[in-house]
Amino acid sequence: MATSGSTPPDARTTPDNPDVAAVERYLTHLQDRICTALEAADGAARFRQDRWNREGGGGGRTRILTGGALFEKAGVGYSDVYGDELPESASAQRPELAGRSFRALGVSLVLHPENPYVPTTHANVRFFVAERQGAEAIWWFGGGFDLTPYYPRLEDAVHWHRTARAACEPFGAEVYPRFKGWCDEYFFLPHRGETRGVGGLFFDDLNEWPFERCFAFQQSVGDHFLPAYLPIAERRLGTPWGERERNFQLYRRGRYVEFNLLYDRGTKFGLASGGRSESILMSLPPLVRWDYGWEPVPGGPEAELYADYLRPRDWLAEAED
Amino acid sequence: MATSGSTPPDARTTPDNPDVAAVERYLTHLQDRICTALEAADGAARFRQDRWNREGGGGGRTRILTGGALFEKAGVGYSDVYGDELPESASAQRPELAGRSFRALGVSLVLHPENPYVPTTHANVRFFVAERQGAEAIWWFGGGFDLTPYYPRLEDAVHWHRTARAACEPFGAEVYPRFKGWCDEYFFLPHRGETRGVGGLFFDDLNEWPFERCFAFQQSVGDHFLPAYLPIAERRLGTPWGERERNFQLYRRGRYVEFNLLYDRGTKFGLASGGRSESILMSLPPLVRWDYGWEPVPGGPEAELYADYLRPRDWLAEAED
Repeated sequence: MATSGSTPPDARTTPDNPDVAAVERYLTHLQDRICTALEAADGAARFRQDRWNREGGGGGRTRILTGGALFEKAGVGYSDVYGDELPESASAQRPELAGRSFRALGVSLVLHPENPYVPTTHANVRFFVAERQGAEAIWWFGGGFDLTPYYPRLEDAVHWHRTARAACEPFGAEVYPRFKGWCDEYFFLPHRGETRGVGGLFFDDLNEWPFERCFAFQQSVGDHFLPAYLPIAERRLGTPWGERERNFQLYRRGRYVEFNLLYDRGTKFGLASGGRSESILMSLPPLVRWDYGWEPVPGGPEAELYADYLRPRDWLAEAED
Repeated sequence: MATSGSTPPDARTTPDNPDVAAVERYLTHLQDRICTALEAADGAARFRQDRWNREGGGGGRTRILTGGALFEKAGVGYSDVYGDELPESASAQRPELAGRSFRALGVSLVLHPENPYVPTTHANVRFFVAERQGAEAIWWFGGGFDLTPYYPRLEDAVHWHRTARAACEPFGAEVYPRFKGWCDEYFFLPHRGETRGVGGLFFDDLNEWPFERCFAFQQSVGDHFLPAYLPIAERRLGTPWGERERNFQLYRRGRYVEFNLLYDRGTKFGLASGGRSESILMSLPPLVRWDYGWEPVPGGPEAELYADYLRPRDWLAEAED
């Protein structure tokens, strides 16, 4: 989608050049497919869409569903931004990018279910390319998905990670443990000494394989999100809940806010580089509480989350022993 | 208060050395006075106190009042931390501090009233000193107070700033405009293009006057907080409110969270340097909402906040014209 501003970098389909048009097709269809499936799973509410343009070039379409039967708030965004020159904040860390035109495309989603027994989740697939006349294109893929339960079930964590492993398997046996480990490391709140949830996959700067293979991996991650999440949501949606569970969910959502505003690179970079605030912050939960000094009742299900789920674990080895 | 760890830097009362013991006395009494006055104003709930120790030296006493008649959540913290050597994160920006023992004392408060017609407020007074045998002490004061209304009244902003000016007046006519301007600049959310509220005073690194004068200024700021805030709270507490006002308050509290986690130096530095998370994050509101793409109804009182109050204004010149 090229909505405004300067011309997007040329996307010739030669072995030396990334096929950006194919990435664009994949990502726009992924957003459509995911929104359709989430509406079907919700059964009550529909996404509404905001198209937006970026002053420097490009834009996006942000889709939000609120007040559903399953989702209190679901945000699925697609963005495609480009420009003749990278913002200084982006090239400061990577001087080789200075003076290049760039294009950054991605789908990013965060789902906040209403029922505290249904986990919150986040997924993202993105592609970046920087070009200069007479030089090879610099490009990479990034993305992943992670799961944040409130009342966790071991079988859900195992299903989640089995699906993550299945997404990685065609690309080598070392891929799942590597990106699973990166996810544990990335979604960590040092001031709480907690992971954000049970993890999943996280990768960035992926360009070590040929473009076609990297792109195939991105598609595999994107395609495995729904089969990873929907069975868990469907299994837990019927569990009755009350004020206790709701309060705990709202309290734990505070950690989600803390992570996204204190540590998440996408959020910080997006806001610092003049991204569309409402689209970047669509990840924030609809309702959140902070309770000073709150501690779970020992032996209760809330204590189990802290004791057994908010640290890196080898879910699959444990399940398959 | 010296609760644990290494010995606090010596506080001799000579013209060359800051009287740290006097600062400590002032700050501990200020916390007491403020808590007593806030309990009286609330009339229903009491503060509970957590004493805590810092591993590297020092500690604090965090006081929280929740579920009151006036305050949904009020946090008033005192901390006094010291050590033989500054954390690297602190001396990286100021190489002259490297290898010095340090002591940092402060009172910090955030009040979240339940009634959306009563503004949220924050105040802070702090002192820092770094010493080394045979060298002059390096010290400075910082602090200020700022007001964040939801349904603002011009007369409240004027009273707030008159009191702020009164706190500054004995120290020179240029002091109020300077620290008022710094406050507007500091409490600004660039990604929203909004100030956090109607401002007040903000100062940091204050050591340009002799110690006694700087300390007197800190006391004047600390002493003017209650007369600045309580008359406003008392005037607005009786205003009836309903779901509309409550929703707007919860929504606007999201901006408070965004500021504190994205930009506030004290929060970021505190968490990065291993401070006590619950004490640092006691500033966060008890209940918060985020609504994607929310806009105030044109012409309504919520629109007035955006149009007239979330930008730097010379409240006193306008009032006295």
